[in-house]
Amino acid sequence: MEEIVFKKFLQFLEEDAPFWDITTEVLILKNVVVKAQVVAKESGVVACLDDVVAVLKRFGLTVKSFTCDGCFIERGSVVLEVVGEARTILYLERIILNILMHCSGVATAVRSLVEKVRKVNSRVRVAATRKTLPGLRYFEKKAVEIGGGDTHRFSLSDAILIKDNHIKIVEGVAKAVKIAKSSASFVHKIEVEVRSVEEAVEAAEAGADIIMFDNMSPNDVEKAIEELRKRGLRDRVLIEVSGGITYENIDEYAKLDVDVISCGWVTLSSKAIDMSLDIVEVIKN
Amino acid sequence: MEEIVFKKFLQFLEEDAPFWDITTEVLILKNVVVKAQVVAKESGVVACLDDVVAVLKRFGLTVKSFTCDGCFIERGSVVLEVVGEARTILYLERIILNILMHCSGVATAVRSLVEKVRKVNSRVRVAATRKTLPGLRYFEKKAVEIGGGDTHRFSLSDAILIKDNHIKIVEGVAKAVKIAKSSASFVHKIEVEVRSVEEAVEAAEAGADIIMFDNMSPNDVEKAIEELRKRGLRDRVLIEVSGGITYENIDEYAKLDVDVISCGWVTLSSKAIDMSLDIVEVIKN
Amino acid sequence: MEEIVFKKFLQFLEEDAPFWDITTEVLILKNVVVKAQVVAKESGVVACLDDVVAVLKRFGLTVKSFTCDGCFIERGSVVLEVVGEARTILYLERIILNILMHCSGVATAVRSLVEKVRKVNSRVRVAATRKTLPGLRYFEKKAVEIGGGDTHRFSLSDAILIKDNHIKIVEGVAKAVKIAKSSASFVHKIEVEVRSVEEAVEAAEAGADIIMFDNMSPNDVEKAIEELRKRGLRDRVLIEVSGGITYENIDEYAKLDVDVISCGWVTLSSKAIDMSLDIVEVIKN
Amino acid sequence: MEEIVFKKFLQFLEEDAPFWDITTEVLILKNVVVKAQVVAKESGVVACLDDVVAVLKRFGLTVKSFTCDGCFIERGSVVLEVVGEARTILYLERIILNILMHCSGVATAVRSLVEKVRKVNSRVRVAATRKTLPGLRYFEKKAVEIGGGDTHRFSLSDAILIKDNHIKIVEGVAKAVKIAKSSASFVHKIEVEVRSVEEAVEAAEAGADIIMFDNMSPNDVEKAIEELRKRGLRDRVLIEVSGGITYENIDEYAKLDVDVISCGWVTLSSKAIDMSLDIVEVIKN
Amino acid sequence: MEEIVFKKFLQFLEEDAPFWDITTEVLILKNVVVKAQVVAKESGVVACLDDVVAVLKRFGLTVKSFTCDGCFIERGSVVLEVVGEARTILYLERIILNILMHCSGVATAVRSLVEKVRKVNSRVRVAATRKTLPGLRYFEKKAVEIGGGDTHRFSLSDAILIKDNHIKIVEGVAKAVKIAKSSASFVHKIEVEVRSVEEAVEAAEAGADIIMFDNMSPNDVEKAIEELRKRGLRDRVLIEVSGGITYENIDEYAKLDVDVISCGWVTLSSKAIDMSLDIVEVIKN
Amino acid sequence: MEEIVFKKFLQFLEEDAPFWDITTEVLILKNVVVKAQVVAKESGVVACLDDVVAVLKRFGLTVKSFTCDGCFIERGSVVLEVVGEARTILYLERIILNILMHCSGVATAVRSLVEKVRKVNSRVRVAATRKTLPGLRYFEKKAVEIGGGDTHRFSLSDAILIKDNHIKIVEGVAKAVKIAKSSASFVHKIEVEVRSVEEAVEAAEAGADIIMFDNMSPNDVEKAIEELRKRGLRDRVLIEVSGGITYENIDEYAKLDVDVISCGWVTLSSKAIDMSLDIVEVIKN
Repeated sequence: MEEIVFKKFLQFLEEDAPFWDITTEVLILKNVVVKAQVVAKESGVVACLDDVVAVLKRFGLTVKSFTCDGCFIERGSVVLEVVGEARTILYLERIILNILMHCSGVATAVRSLVEKVRKVNSRVRVAATRKTLPGLRYFEKKAVEIGGGDTHRFSLSDAILIKDNHIKIVEGVAKAVKIAKSSASFVHKIEVEVRSVEEAVEAAEAGADIIMFDNMSPNDVEKAIEELRKRGLRDRVLIEVSGGITYENIDEYAKLDVDVISCGWVTLSSKAIDMSLDIVEVIKN
Repeated sequence: MEEIVFKKFLQFLEEDAPFWDITTEVLILKNVVVKAQVVAKESGVVACLDDVVAVLKRFGLTVKSFTCDGCFIERGSVVLEVVGEARTILYLERIILNILMHCSGVATAVRSLVEKVRKVNSRVRVAATRKTLPGLRYFEKKAVEIGGGDTHRFSLSDAILIKDNHIKIVEGVAKAVKIAKSSASFVHKIEVEVRSVEEAVEAAEAGADIIMFDNMSPNDVEKAIEELRKRGLRDRVLIEVSGGITYENIDEYAKLDVDVISCGWVTLSSKAIDMSLDIVEVIKN
Repeated sequence: MEEIVFKKFLQFLEEDAPFWDITTEVLILKNVVVKAQVVAKESGVVACLDDVVAVLKRFGLTVKSFTCDGCFIERGSVVLEVVGEARTILYLERIILNILMHCSGVATAVRSLVEKVRKVNSRVRVAATRKTLPGLRYFEKKAVEIGGGDTHRFSLSDAILIKDNHIKIVEGVAKAVKIAKSSASFVHKIEVEVRSVEEAVEAAEAGADIIMFDNMSPNDVEKAIEELRKRGLRDRVLIEVSGGITYENIDEYAKLDVDVISCGWVTLSSKAIDMSLDIVEVIKN
Repeated sequence: MEEIVFKKFLQFLEEDAPFWDITTEVLILKNVVVKAQVVAKESGVVACLDDVVAVLKRFGLTVKSFTCDGCFIERGSVVLEVVGEARTILYLERIILNILMHCSGVATAVRSLVEKVRKVNSRVRVAATRKTLPGLRYFEKKAVEIGGGDTHRFSLSDAILIKDNHIKIVEGVAKAVKIAKSSASFVHKIEVEVRSVEEAVEAAEAGADIIMFDNMSPNDVEKAIEELRKRGLRDRVLIEVSGGITYENIDEYAKLDVDVISCGWVTLSSKAIDMSLDIVEVIKN
Repeated sequence: MEEIVFKKFLQFLEEDAPFWDITTEVLILKNVVVKAQVVAKESGVVACLDDVVAVLKRFGLTVKSFTCDGCFIERGSVVLEVVGEARTILYLERIILNILMHCSGVATAVRSLVEKVRKVNSRVRVAATRKTLPGLRYFEKKAVEIGGGDTHRFSLSDAILIKDNHIKIVEGVAKAVKIAKSSASFVHKIEVEVRSVEEAVEAAEAGADIIMFDNMSPNDVEKAIEELRKRGLRDRVLIEVSGGITYENIDEYAKLDVDVISCGWVTLSSKAIDMSLDIVEVIKN
Repeated sequence: MEEIVFKKFLQFLEEDAPFWDITTEVLILKNVVVKAQVVAKESGVVACLDDVVAVLKRFGLTVKSFTCDGCFIERGSVVLEVVGEARTILYLERIILNILMHCSGVATAVRSLVEKVRKVNSRVRVAATRKTLPGLRYFEKKAVEIGGGDTHRFSLSDAILIKDNHIKIVEGVAKAVKIAKSSASFVHKIEVEVRSVEEAVEAAEAGADIIMFDNMSPNDVEKAIEELRKRGLRDRVLIEVSGGITYENIDEYAKLDVDVISCGWVTLSSKAIDMSLDIVEVIKN
């Protein structure tokens, strides 16, 4: 994947310097060699470090990592050290920081949810959604995985997810599931978003693989699961809850007999982990 | 710009459906016509609505906006209404929401800072930085402007910003400013990041257009400005403060005689404004 | 999807005329208007006609279809009629024919297999594979679906398929399935390619969703299924057979208790359905 | 050309893994090193091996070829051996096989025609057409050349070919040739598609460089050539026959005094040569 | 071709406004409607006007042309008038002018040569070369044609041109021609660059289609042609002269029995025809 | 920037060989190694040599430069020597020459202006404009800088330039400047194009950073500056003159108290410096 990731970085760099870095070109001569460090200014879980290291190397720089994807770093610790042409390092600085900071932010948010969930239910997965920042899905889904989360659907092309809007048109949960089962490829799982016990039962009986309780209170989810269990349907489906899940309330859902809890905000609204790149030594001027 | 924005959206759509939307293609027939609404589930400042409306129209849909870029919307209010082919609407749903939610989040964060700043100093601008999500700078800078903020540098190619790392290599603030003044194009302003009173004075005397106090306490900034004023340098430069500015502490900086306060987190760590797209009527099935 | 398909066609046209159509530019004046017909020179199942019609319209031409995606056409029948600028029609001619002919060839091959299979087992699906012509997967998978087949995996990103090469490294079918079940997203099904009864049992017991019998004789497949049935595992999995399936032998597999029969040659080695574009009337010269 | 080919392969890989290879990432650790072989499961003429080897090397793999472009390989023989990171090899597997299999299929088809033609007329060339799979013209034309065929026009921009549809508008073969001769660049040859003796004579007299007999029986072609010879026009033109040429009937045309026989099906309808990639040794796990 | 040209213009616009037009966005409100004129500030031959008009229309503007591709315009005359959104017109202004001015400059240079040549020899063509500005070959070759010139080779892929450097490696003009004749496709003409009478004779005897006298004085060219005539080779080849041809000396070559005179400077060093875009009326403010 | 420049060159190469170099592929075997020289056939200032050298190296060639960017070379001198695969060198030949010749032409034109200006006023800068050849702005602006000129605006996104057309709509120079000062980012300078003393005064008083006298005679410019000086406004602004500046008249402007003289023709109408690439030794055949 490195070549594909490199291509994406080139696009990011073109955005950040449509012509050239007018400050650095004017101030720093060619062939000045420096050592620089990326330092964490907040603690968190590192993500997409491998991608960044590969890009730095492709630009002819020597890189040493001091941590790893998925590792927790303390504030003030060195993430990586890079030696090479000063112009190149300064040209790449902002883009690699933006990716590292954002992805580490995503991974840190996911990790915090996973840890909270684990305390009450070791079997439940924390998943992301398609609420990702356009153009960054590769990096964000990878950060979710690194944080210990479940990537969920990558795109509209890789699993069936029958949502409220579909059902409004198709008129009937069972009907929708049946159409999907007969028309979609056998390799895709079929998930259905439901808003009531009745819909949940209908979906499970129609053969859905996954049922998503959308925007339901823990209490209502519990009742719905109970009903599924009574009817012997609980074990035929995976159960996902989604909508309105926060760090504060996630354990109320995690205590239930659910399989997956998904949150859009871990990708769309997470806080970046602050990092900076500092030149620590001018090796050749 | 509409054509360029449209091209960006096509790339986002390719990411979200590398093949096709397997759910909708299977469940919804061609030529089903619906009316759908984008509804705000949180209050905030709307941004990039014009871009989204233009894209929807380019896909043959009829759109009616109920608010405008820069308008504040209450929770529950309708942002736009769209009528047309159901398949097209569902195909576009996630991408337009992701852009609208993220950009409105940025604009809302900026607006809140601007309003807080205005209360203490009507002359100070709130600015963004180059800490933007790679690939989304156009949208984020536009959201900053819509929120009432200053876009600051778009890229490395449009203004000189001499940072700490440059000074480490060039050895000397004044020297760096002088090189920039003689070598850079006359159309670019020259900004210098400083960390002390001495550096500030040195930069101003060397002819910098803008001085950025980076990561300094309000107190230290005040002293530095005082020193510049004493030396008759205050009015020759614009003064920007940056680093560690939060919603909580921004007014402490705003009270000072500064021109610009810049924050990276409004683009890199803002919270999206939650919105959903709901089909409200099936017009033709 | 029309906009994305249009973008692909522009790339195809750039390949076919890196500068311009030197023959037509020299011989045909601007504003000459003609009526032309695409005529089938062989019978077959039409595919990707909708895509082609949409492209022709985007180029300002008036189009009338005389058949539909998935329809069987006889030799000599008119597929579509197009009226408009002669230069545009001649510029598009070869590319639309190449797509129509190839995709109809794929759909025709799939349809013939589906019909043969249906005669012995109405429940079995005929599926394609990832053996597609690079760059044409969207069109080929769509043609497969139009022909009545199952698209199978679109890409490496949308379902887990543990193949022989993976097992050689992981050492053990059960181990591989277990890793996949615990690490892969819950939205992906897990398929395992097996080469013996033992591997099939191991995969099913480890919780695979789909078992693929690769390059096994009908006889061996039958025995393996029998063994799965005995152990009560048959209904827990879908069964796919693959490898060496031809039009001649497909019914021997279809007679068995399998769910899916997949063939790579329908996309990589199918015969195009011959068609030509003929100008039938010069409307304005 | 390697860099351009590499760029094309990256696009193919993006199609085959829009996010990442979810099976391999989960099952195979980084730094697992294996040796794998590409093995022919059918005999045929190898094509585009050089391109594939260059791509494998660009991905950091060590490659050893056991055959060459244009070489005939027997069923079961090893095409190439590749050593390196297992993840990379499995990521590239399908795409390099799809290209190798398809291009070798094209080259094999061409070679078989060339050999049949050679037996009756050593001077006749077998040529391809513009009936190529969109996006793959570089590879297919190269495969044609490797198979011993003539590439014919690469695109609409590189030679004049006046076809039936042009003549319908221009009204007159001679008129069309004359316009082309006076308006087209002197570097382009002028070819005319004719359907009768009269048109052939007209084209030759008007100064066409090449005459293409389209969809005419061997008998009719013979008569037309005879007529050209009588009028002293035969040696002023090259003669191409096209349309409806198969492996079965090609020698009937080859026996005639023609220069070129062209077939669209060698690119659009050839059968791929089956190959597989097998890991033969796990060097480091 | 309009769609392809439009795509090229979008790239040019992205270069000219990587973010947006910061002046116009700030000064001109949306929906301001103006009428503007493109006016020639120098006389010359107009080229690529059709392309520019098509682009303006694609951006929703109303356009009226006052001249045509290939027409000669006097200083001060109006080239086109455009009515529409002021923002759009100002956004497009520079790019359409740059293309129109450059292409008209190319066409004007070509026309002046053609006219000078016509006076002494009506049969000789003036041709361009591959010395074009990278990325602009489509526009420049079109401008050459519009100016009355011959486009010559579009690229390395459309005709054989054996140059001095090839001959140094192949060792022998005749040998090179023979290899080309047997290996290159029959659709390509074979041209050879020669530097002496001997090489010219050798090339013609070996069957070259075109002989290019490179950097030879009119006198030497005359002698070489005489020698070819003596040997009965003159009419078997086209003769091109190239290298060092200027407006001043072109008629000395044109007087000779040559077919083509080619000049690289018409594309690489021509002077643009100055034009400006002036808003002549504010229709709606 | 090398990677971005390399990407641009790949696009140029695709334009120059949409399929492959049919001459070289046929005549020159793989693995033929040659030494070639790029030789200047005219004297001038070299530009973009670094870019070209980097590209040659990326293609695996060994390169030795005999001059440098910004160096003046005499006619006949060697610019660079390159050793490597003959096919690669011949494939790259035309594109690297086209870039080198054009950019050196731009740098040479700029240098000649700079030298003439220096003789009368050492403080004045010679600047380029946005009149650049679409797609080549990076190279042309770099050539301007190498020639000793000022790059001026790279694009519409990097400085405010209020032109005549804006003023026609906004109605009033002062009004336009004030809007720009309050709405545009503080990092952008504000330049105003004026056509009279009155407008100049108005602009300066309103706070413009730069005043551009457009198409005014030296005499009128002098008077306007005098008026500004009288009012104490001269030192608050930079003064640029533009429009109709030629090599002949530039010193008349340079004698005045202006800061910048800008010319569009240095990029849009400069003459290329002629160079050729000659194989000087066949090292391995």
